[in-house]
Amino acid sequence: MHFKISKREFINALSTVSRAVSSTTPLPLLLGIKIDVNEDSICLTGSDADISIKKTIPAASDDYCLTIMDTGSVVIKADIINNIVRKMDADDIEVEVLDGTRTKFSGHSVEQTVSGMNVNDYPVINFDKPETTLSMEPTTLMKIITQTCFATSDKETRPVLTGVNFKANGNKMECVATDSYRLAKKVVELNGDYQFNLTIPARSLREIGKSTNEMTKALDKNEQIEISLNDKKAQFLIGDTLIQTRLIDGTYPETGKLIPTEFKNELVVDARDMLNAIDRASFIRTDGVSIIKLSANQNEVVISSRSQEVGTSIEKIDAISYKGEPLEISFSGRYVFDAIQVLTGSVVKISFSGEMRPFIIQNTDDDTILQLVLPVRTYS
Amino acid sequence: MHFKISKREFINALSTVSRAVSSTTPLPLLLGIKIDVNEDSICLTGSDADISIKKTIPAASDDYCLTIMDTGSVVIKADIINNIVRKMDADDIEVEVLDGTRTKFSGHSVEQTVSGMNVNDYPVINFDKPETTLSMEPTTLMKIITQTCFATSDKETRPVLTGVNFKANGNKMECVATDSYRLAKKVVELNGDYQFNLTIPARSLREIGKSTNEMTKALDKNEQIEISLNDKKAQFLIGDTLIQTRLIDGTYPETGKLIPTEFKNELVVDARDMLNAIDRASFIRTDGVSIIKLSANQNEVVISSRSQEVGTSIEKIDAISYKGEPLEISFSGRYVFDAIQVLTGSVVKISFSGEMRPFIIQNTDDDTILQLVLPVRTYS
Repeated sequence: MHFKISKREFINALSTVSRAVSSTTPLPLLLGIKIDVNEDSICLTGSDADISIKKTIPAASDDYCLTIMDTGSVVIKADIINNIVRKMDADDIEVEVLDGTRTKFSGHSVEQTVSGMNVNDYPVINFDKPETTLSMEPTTLMKIITQTCFATSDKETRPVLTGVNFKANGNKMECVATDSYRLAKKVVELNGDYQFNLTIPARSLREIGKSTNEMTKALDKNEQIEISLNDKKAQFLIGDTLIQTRLIDGTYPETGKLIPTEFKNELVVDARDMLNAIDRASFIRTDGVSIIKLSANQNEVVISSRSQEVGTSIEKIDAISYKGEPLEISFSGRYVFDAIQVLTGSVVKISFSGEMRPFIIQNTDDDTILQLVLPVRTYS
Repeated sequence: MHFKISKREFINALSTVSRAVSSTTPLPLLLGIKIDVNEDSICLTGSDADISIKKTIPAASDDYCLTIMDTGSVVIKADIINNIVRKMDADDIEVEVLDGTRTKFSGHSVEQTVSGMNVNDYPVINFDKPETTLSMEPTTLMKIITQTCFATSDKETRPVLTGVNFKANGNKMECVATDSYRLAKKVVELNGDYQFNLTIPARSLREIGKSTNEMTKALDKNEQIEISLNDKKAQFLIGDTLIQTRLIDGTYPETGKLIPTEFKNELVVDARDMLNAIDRASFIRTDGVSIIKLSANQNEVVISSRSQEVGTSIEKIDAISYKGEPLEISFSGRYVFDAIQVLTGSVVKISFSGEMRPFIIQNTDDDTILQLVLPVRTYS
């Protein structure tokens, strides 16, 4: 194995696949990045068994230099190869396996050799493309991820809730996340008719989000992301980067009937005002949780919070409109804050169907995304 | 206690005194900031018992608003008051003790009350000014701190080495820090004749450095720092901010005789080249330590590192000059890196007096600062 490559291109590719490398894996080989040098490209792979990222760098390019002298493969610890390549004193770096796995990196006045690991000990990762394939704008994928992932559960008691459920029926896909106290639902139109129902780990989606974000900056804006699915895995192809994640086993709960459709009260309010008011009151916590009380009527809307130990916060906010009888309802400040924050609209509509019933938060100008929060019972 | 103050001025003052507040003190009162409202000023105090910061805000100022309605004192938890004041929805904030220690903060549409703590339970901090007083340019104090503190010991086995020793004899002050493997010595001219020998905790000096840095930005550049000392404490007065620290008990070791005065070899080299070479080799560690070998002769200078487990690094660097016989010497990469980094000069001179003798690193154009490093013995 022997090649010479632009430092900048190599750094970017290593940083992309390093996202999948965990520093706490029980399998030492997975601390490494696998380098496969073929006749006309090199291919980097990083994986933590749940999520795997493969980046292909073709030799023929006007944007960077890549000269392949000899094919072959080796695995090098991710922290070490990143460290060496980032700090190398030349624009082009030469990489050569000397004997077995001992690998030499040469720059201008620097020569560094490291003990690699045997590529035969690296787990076999099946990158075969699943049969169901759809394509999507990068911005659409980013919206799905940022608007749903935060609402997944971080507890392993119900593993299926640690993922986002993707359910397609015809050309409509519903993406749902819930930790059973709140729920986020995003509806997306697909480029054809599909039938699937699968759950992708939130952790994988967050990594896919970071990679998408990074790579769409470098790519032509019109380039679509290709998503391939079966009942075992999901693949996301972004330019020359392939991200593959396992799915979560188990049946995702039916959430449709949790979402109320009839409402008694409706508050329309500036999103920033609501976020600031909740944030200001958040220093008041009981057992680490900030409970906010919303009191609304035709004349005024008051956000308040109170704890015996810490103190009180009372704030009037200017509503854009309020419909319905006077209302008093209490909720987790963080849940409503998170929900409004990901909506990104400047005005939000909050619809209530009773003081102990879940309420929903929506943008006034975008009905593809819905946030639901359960109120909390207070005794004061 | 009742006053109204510019939000910006209040935030700055709170952030200054918060530096001294530790989040892990065993004394709950020290989690708080003491507010004393006098007839014509308010005074904030934060302390962790070792270091205390007092900030005075005079009522008469054209730069900000401060209106005092009623004198008095209260102690409020630092995290809570910082949180409230930062997020308040008005340019001016009104603060009022309602009953006992319950304190109300009012902005535009917001009212928040918190349970304060009783000022009588707050430790009595003696801010009396010690007799020995000298003044110093802020930049000089900053140089002393950045060029010596890093070389103090972080182990409590010899407490006196966790501080920087300040020894004045006439109008010359020597500031020395050592962890017994390396030593930093800065010599400063004083504005008069003094005799003292005291050791200030490095942790306090770092805080003083941060405050000095922050406050000199806001102050007239010509404003001097007033330093007052006795055998118990040191005070630093920067504008309206008073920082007071305890001293470390115990006799500081005589370090003068450790510093060699005769040299066999002398290497002059670009500081950036040397830093980069050490940094590049630093991925090679044995038991967490990066050991660097310097091989120098009239023709070439090579920086190398080797470990059985990780690999090797070999780099030629261009020396500006080298005097003496060929030399091979090994040292901790981090120690030499730290030493060169704080010198800030673009060219450094390294003077050796033998392969197992301490060597010194200096700027070629500034002889007030000297860095000494002990070599390490290697068996390869």
